Amino acid sequence: MKKVWRVNIREKSFEIEKVPEQWDRLGGRALLSCILVDEVDAHCNPLGYKNKLIFAPGLLVGYNLSSCDRISIGGKSPLTGGVKESNAGGRTGLQLVRLGIKALIIEDKPSDESWTVLHISKEGVRFDPGEELIGLGVYESSTKLIEIYGDKVAIALIGPAGEMQLSAAGIQNLDKDKAPSRIAARGGLGAVMGSKGIKAIIIDGSLGEKPEVVDEQGLKAARKAYTKALLGHPQTKVYKDYGTAALTMMVDTFGALPTRNFSSGSFEGAENLSGEKMRENLLDRGGDCDPSHPCMVGCAIQSSNIYVTLDGGTTVSPLEYETIGLMGSNLGIDDMDLIAKLNFEVNDLGMDSIEVGAALGVSADAGYLDFGDGERVLELLAEIRAGSPLGRILGNGAATAGKVLGVERVPVAKGQAFSAYDPRAIKGTGITYATSPQGADHTCGLTIRANIDHRDPKGQKEISLDKQLAMAGFDSLGACIFAGFGYGADENVIPSLLNAIYGWNEEVGVLKKMGQESITFERKFNKMAGFTKADDRLPEWVTKEQLPPFNSVFDVPDTDLDSVFEWEDR
Amino acid sequence: MKKVWRVNIREKSFEIEKVPEQWDRLGGRALLSCILVDEVDAHCNPLGYKNKLIFAPGLLVGYNLSSCDRISIGGKSPLTGGVKESNAGGRTGLQLVRLGIKALIIEDKPSDESWTVLHISKEGVRFDPGEELIGLGVYESSTKLIEIYGDKVAIALIGPAGEMQLSAAGIQNLDKDKAPSRIAARGGLGAVMGSKGIKAIIIDGSLGEKPEVVDEQGLKAARKAYTKALLGHPQTKVYKDYGTAALTMMVDTFGALPTRNFSSGSFEGAENLSGEKMRENLLDRGGDCDPSHPCMVGCAIQSSNIYVTLDGGTTVSPLEYETIGLMGSNLGIDDMDLIAKLNFEVNDLGMDSIEVGAALGVSADAGYLDFGDGERVLELLAEIRAGSPLGRILGNGAATAGKVLGVERVPVAKGQAFSAYDPRAIKGTGITYATSPQGADHTCGLTIRANIDHRDPKGQKEISLDKQLAMAGFDSLGACIFAGFGYGADENVIPSLLNAIYGWNEEVGVLKKMGQESITFERKFNKMAGFTKADDRLPEWVTKEQLPPFNSVFDVPDTDLDSVFEWEDR
Repeated sequence: MKKVWRVNIREKSFEIEKVPEQWDRLGGRALLSCILVDEVDAHCNPLGYKNKLIFAPGLLVGYNLSSCDRISIGGKSPLTGGVKESNAGGRTGLQLVRLGIKALIIEDKPSDESWTVLHISKEGVRFDPGEELIGLGVYESSTKLIEIYGDKVAIALIGPAGEMQLSAAGIQNLDKDKAPSRIAARGGLGAVMGSKGIKAIIIDGSLGEKPEVVDEQGLKAARKAYTKALLGHPQTKVYKDYGTAALTMMVDTFGALPTRNFSSGSFEGAENLSGEKMRENLLDRGGDCDPSHPCMVGCAIQSSNIYVTLDGGTTVSPLEYETIGLMGSNLGIDDMDLIAKLNFEVNDLGMDSIEVGAALGVSADAGYLDFGDGERVLELLAEIRAGSPLGRILGNGAATAGKVLGVERVPVAKGQAFSAYDPRAIKGTGITYATSPQGADHTCGLTIRANIDHRDPKGQKEISLDKQLAMAGFDSLGACIFAGFGYGADENVIPSLLNAIYGWNEEVGVLKKMGQESITFERKFNKMAGFTKADDRLPEWVTKEQLPPFNSVFDVPDTDLDSVFEWEDR
Repeated sequence: MKKVWRVNIREKSFEIEKVPEQWDRLGGRALLSCILVDEVDAHCNPLGYKNKLIFAPGLLVGYNLSSCDRISIGGKSPLTGGVKESNAGGRTGLQLVRLGIKALIIEDKPSDESWTVLHISKEGVRFDPGEELIGLGVYESSTKLIEIYGDKVAIALIGPAGEMQLSAAGIQNLDKDKAPSRIAARGGLGAVMGSKGIKAIIIDGSLGEKPEVVDEQGLKAARKAYTKALLGHPQTKVYKDYGTAALTMMVDTFGALPTRNFSSGSFEGAENLSGEKMRENLLDRGGDCDPSHPCMVGCAIQSSNIYVTLDGGTTVSPLEYETIGLMGSNLGIDDMDLIAKLNFEVNDLGMDSIEVGAALGVSADAGYLDFGDGERVLELLAEIRAGSPLGRILGNGAATAGKVLGVERVPVAKGQAFSAYDPRAIKGTGITYATSPQGADHTCGLTIRANIDHRDPKGQKEISLDKQLAMAGFDSLGACIFAGFGYGADENVIPSLLNAIYGWNEEVGVLKKMGQESITFERKFNKMAGFTKADDRLPEWVTKEQLPPFNSVFDVPDTDLDSVFEWEDR
């Protein structure tokens, strides 16, 4: 039976607890949202002693399913002031499950300035000193940690940004090949980890076991059906070949590619940032380059990549569309090698490239950067590393940068930066940005694949809800968004998997049921934290400033925004 | 009959309108709060085109009553995100009433970067160019404006901070002696004025008239009773002799004097900051010094002063207790001349000395300032003037400074800095800070004179409410807080004055009735803007960090905070 592991970082103590009944059927995002509702004072200071940092593997993690080993990390967000779940691939989820951990809850904060490396294994929790790693980037820190703890462990760690408790700091996780490349990026959870004086968490599942399965034969059959559906889906092949960069040209065509701080939806240099261009670079260069790289063991999608710059000086894995959008076109940069270098720096700082890219775009409008000047971007990233006033402004994200630097065109909802889809041209995703309890986030419900006129405000809320429910469900399962290709192709797969593993009696529709459960917890937490309808809005400028080339504004009526979650009493 | 003057700053047009019936019996704070509820989208960007900047004289302004000519200025606050009324003495209210203006409502924002000097007179509204004044401090700007427009006009103007749209920027008003010393300081209204491209508003009431009075004889009698009560009150004499600096030793004795960023409630240098010390300096130095200076024509209290530093180099009027507390003891500074110099700079920038002092205190905890180092404070104020990143951090107030610089001990409620009374030692005032719709502000309900144990959490909410209602009432009348001495001594005075002037039938109790009306509008606006109970709280650290010397924390229960406004349904 899986257990809850509870660590008190002030007392340097831990307890292993039975899972309370109300958490038993929950996993990942839904579980940690429920824990937040049950245990965390929603009014608390996110960087204070009352907040908790929670790691919860999804319900399907650890059962040898392609693309289903994601870890959900959460707490009250220092960026949004509300609920926060951010998930990542890599090893962390898998090794926690090997140790039988349903949720790791880290409480309180140290009474002094000390730093800890938390070591979690079959023997329990150890509190190793972390001071020697302080100030080191994510890459160097992880190399040193692997030297100490071996290359079989999972590691979740923060960089200098998390140490400085900057709101754009995330938590990096080792991928299957030891690269600290899988970041739970959004919402400032790296700052929460920093506030608790934890530089890294080592999870050594080597003495652990495979998790129990109620019906092994049933699981085998369900797994087979799932893999078949996944491999048979045409999109699987697209992502294998082109990665998420396949989106660049598609989004540019829709007129939704963030360009020069969201002042346009189309970028003249888009082709240089396309999936085709990336594949060409990766195939041409050979060597360590890998256009189709899995982040988790046994992944059939392999949407990730290892990108090496032409000079061989920088290797970054993965180079993703969101980074290309926010740190490329959004900054007027059309050079993929340059974006890779920027991405490396942001990774090494341990930050969300979406949030940092958006903040940099805002800073350009304030006169701190000429669009297209990559060298200046590197200087600004160095300011973040140095913790200068300007660096701290940028490192706290786009909303803070806009407020401090006096810029109106700030692309945020609930204080969190838009992903690389302008909501004026993909209005369903704009509804997701506005209404998701998580703040603006494409992973909470991207509508771009819906067969609809994306600039028509009508009919978008239903699509946004559909995607929001599916994503909240996937995030509770520990499933990558791309696993949806397999689930979508065979609607019996999810209930079959859950029923075989846990002995439940779930039916078709369980994904959305779980999604609704999760969003309900999340909205409850936000409400307790003081969120209202006023928080389910996009900023004023998107409703009045027309977006070239189609000159659209965000004109979804407030009544639609207020009625997305149709099951709620209003 | 008074009228509403409505200016559109984009169109450079104006209209003079009949007062709508629902505004007819309102004035000052209550009136502008009602206008906000009626006309301003509570979700709007405070610095955007939908916000309005409103000037509303109180109901008693213009009738030759001592201490009753205050002007209420308001709009949606860029500091708190909620309703904002900030009032000041000086000439502005009086000259607006001379022009028969019940409310001046300034709408929209310019379509370009142009700057305007708004000229208001019997001939209407003129839009003079303002560019030549841009970048100039408040003192130099007002000197130039007086050269152009003569020394009889009223002037409301912003300094460089307002031009930069910093959230700690206020609006300065000329006092009766042409000094731009009466600041509507709180909540960032200077930034709202800056966002509308207005450097100054000239109000030339010279061709105006005395306002109508229904019953001149009745007014004469009521005025006489009021003046008698005012002059007979012992506190009147205290403020005449010592100004508000009389509070320093009293607050220090209570252990509530903000010291080194609210880390203590008692300051070893307090005696150097006392009313006695100030009077000694002023009497010793003679010359332009004036220990008992009125800010408005005909004021009997004369709590203000003109303070000249020993070297004669700096003249500041007035030097007030709140500045002494926030920029003196709160920064570890015990030299009154040095505080006067800092105050001069803050005035010249056109900023709220409370907000700036609190932000500087926070910056000291972040390592940007050694407590007691006045030269460094001058450097930091120069950073604000230069608009550097650090300057903009500080200029946006304590909450932003704390967020960006990573400091937990940030003295704010609703994003606005505490006044110079630590809420852990004066708990009734802490309730006011937490629950006032305006954010932390002693002028919304200071409880220090209540005969109660200020550290006992019990029984405070009733006292806070009593003071909040009275202050909201005074602010709607245009009455200085000290006018309350006269009103308090004779409870028939206020209804008599209103009935004589307007022909109403008000009774004893009208002050609190008006206060309740105003607070009801304000809470309605805040609710529409998304405020909830979660906003009626003090920050977490005041509930856990003990305040020396009495080691108290703020332990008023949330249930008390949620039931202050007893007339509300909950």
